[in-house]
Amino acid sequence: IDTMAADAARRRQDQLTKPRGSLGRLEEMAIKLAGMQGASAPSPDPVHILQFMSDHGVAAEGISVFPQEVTIQMLHNIARGGAAVSVMAEAIGARMEIIDLGILTDPGPVENVRSERLGFGTGNIAREPAMSEEQLVAAMNAGRSGVERALSNGARLLICGEMGIGNTTPATAVACALLDRPAIDMVGPGTGLNAEGLERKRRAVESALALHLAPGRSTLDLLARLGGFDIVATTGAYITAAQRGLPILVDGFIMSAAALAAVRLQPEVRNWMLFSHSSAEPGHRLMMEALEADPYLNLGMRLGEATGGEALVPLLRLACALHQKMATFAEAGIAEV
Amino acid sequence: IDTMAADAARRRQDQLTKPRGSLGRLEEMAIKLAGMQGASAPSPDPVHILQFMSDHGVAAEGISVFPQEVTIQMLHNIARGGAAVSVMAEAIGARMEIIDLGILTDPGPVENVRSERLGFGTGNIAREPAMSEEQLVAAMNAGRSGVERALSNGARLLICGEMGIGNTTPATAVACALLDRPAIDMVGPGTGLNAEGLERKRRAVESALALHLAPGRSTLDLLARLGGFDIVATTGAYITAAQRGLPILVDGFIMSAAALAAVRLQPEVRNWMLFSHSSAEPGHRLMMEALEADPYLNLGMRLGEATGGEALVPLLRLACALHQKMATFAEAGIAEV
Repeated sequence: IDTMAADAARRRQDQLTKPRGSLGRLEEMAIKLAGMQGASAPSPDPVHILQFMSDHGVAAEGISVFPQEVTIQMLHNIARGGAAVSVMAEAIGARMEIIDLGILTDPGPVENVRSERLGFGTGNIAREPAMSEEQLVAAMNAGRSGVERALSNGARLLICGEMGIGNTTPATAVACALLDRPAIDMVGPGTGLNAEGLERKRRAVESALALHLAPGRSTLDLLARLGGFDIVATTGAYITAAQRGLPILVDGFIMSAAALAAVRLQPEVRNWMLFSHSSAEPGHRLMMEALEADPYLNLGMRLGEATGGEALVPLLRLACALHQKMATFAEAGIAEV
Repeated sequence: IDTMAADAARRRQDQLTKPRGSLGRLEEMAIKLAGMQGASAPSPDPVHILQFMSDHGVAAEGISVFPQEVTIQMLHNIARGGAAVSVMAEAIGARMEIIDLGILTDPGPVENVRSERLGFGTGNIAREPAMSEEQLVAAMNAGRSGVERALSNGARLLICGEMGIGNTTPATAVACALLDRPAIDMVGPGTGLNAEGLERKRRAVESALALHLAPGRSTLDLLARLGGFDIVATTGAYITAAQRGLPILVDGFIMSAAALAAVRLQPEVRNWMLFSHSSAEPGHRLMMEALEADPYLNLGMRLGEATGGEALVPLLRLACALHQKMATFAEAGIAEV
């Protein structure tokens, strides 16, 4: 982080023709981006979205209202532009790369989809590890190479998103493991579980924690046992983005589990993160507290797919436009107070 | 309000390829605009901003950190594009009309500024009425005719904004009068008063309330005694917008006082209002409660000038894009749950 650039941005904000601090967190957004980008004219553009598709063996425990074949259907929907993430990416003018990390059925070649398949979904974490060590490394590398492609496209802001039926369950299990919380503290309705489904989900997370938690297990080991290809790839992407100085906009519940893992692995990654929104998924608050994060938006969103991150982009742009284009008191001939 | 259009929009939201309700308040934005516009394809565009400039005699009580000449300096700054409202209007592609309702000194002809001067500022409400009945009517009409011009330019969303040193004080006085609250409940730091300034502001509002409140006084009478040209013009604008079916996006603290007055005068105006943001000015919360409003953004903004409204516009656009462009479950060949 370029603290000189952040300080200069802060000083500039105090010289702009408005009462000090009166633009609230729009000032903070510009100052933070300035520090991350080492720039006097910070900007989120170009925005690059890595959209990770994967399936999760734990779906067999009946922990989602949607059947698992919806993942492949949504892969096609996202690729064709009909999903929320796609509509918003077009609306905000962001580049999006859709990456199949290993959904249940190989979709074959699909336009706009990059195949980096690591398997046919993960193992059912309630009964077995999600993935092997080799899959873990490959998933991390899929995230890392996604960031390298983003950078070679000139990206100045990274948003990772995910879609895969059941993926709030591994995200919940990872968060419980990393935050040392019981399932009951973190389990939520995801796409819309009723009380019975919620109970199944709680039991699945409890089984997974009972099976996989043991003293001395590393963060990487826990990720391999409890995670998903999406969470692991994002963890790798976040670490690489921070290493390469690319600002990260963390989306909702599932991406926050990856954020927790990345920060646990390399604490300085936290400095490169902005947090888009408070998810309606109840456990999200605990993750934000652990990350000392205060997300900008609170609109009751709980869709995932990078949509919360996308929603914040226009506000980041406004924050940067204000930072660059407002007149200073001196320029406007107004006496500072 | 076209409840058929709102119901149709709600049904469409439930058919889009996402878990029901998972876009949270982005769904609500599209449904509300659909109902207000009687449209299956709601849109905030074109957005029209009426930016009301005025001065306030109560500034003589030392209730602002900025001297009163900053109003005319800011008028030029806004007109030249250097103010926050101007930068954001350009960034979001909104049309803005700047209207001088009577600042302290007549600026003469200024490019991009419409002169509808009703005086040389208002009277000092701590010692006299803000304006005469004639000025009240003229200010209401200035707001009304601004809306007519917006409509003739095809506007589909109205944002009123204001700038004028000291204007949180009349806004506070109006809110206290309409909500039957003592000054202490509503007075806040505005542009950044210290404890001493806050005390002067509280005393000014108390003096104004002691002087002007009396049993049986009408809302219009209270507006003339305690208001400002900006608040009164906006009250007129909101009433006309509602009568003409033009959705209103209510900005922060001062515009919320006008919203309260408009709804007090004509309760059905409330149905045409969206509320952009929670102001950092503490009394704003009480106004929102009285209006049963739950603003969308909470970014610590406290600048006024329509900037909160402008910040929400990109999210309204995203909400409408999602509403129109997302695939339905049927279109995507996905089984609904």
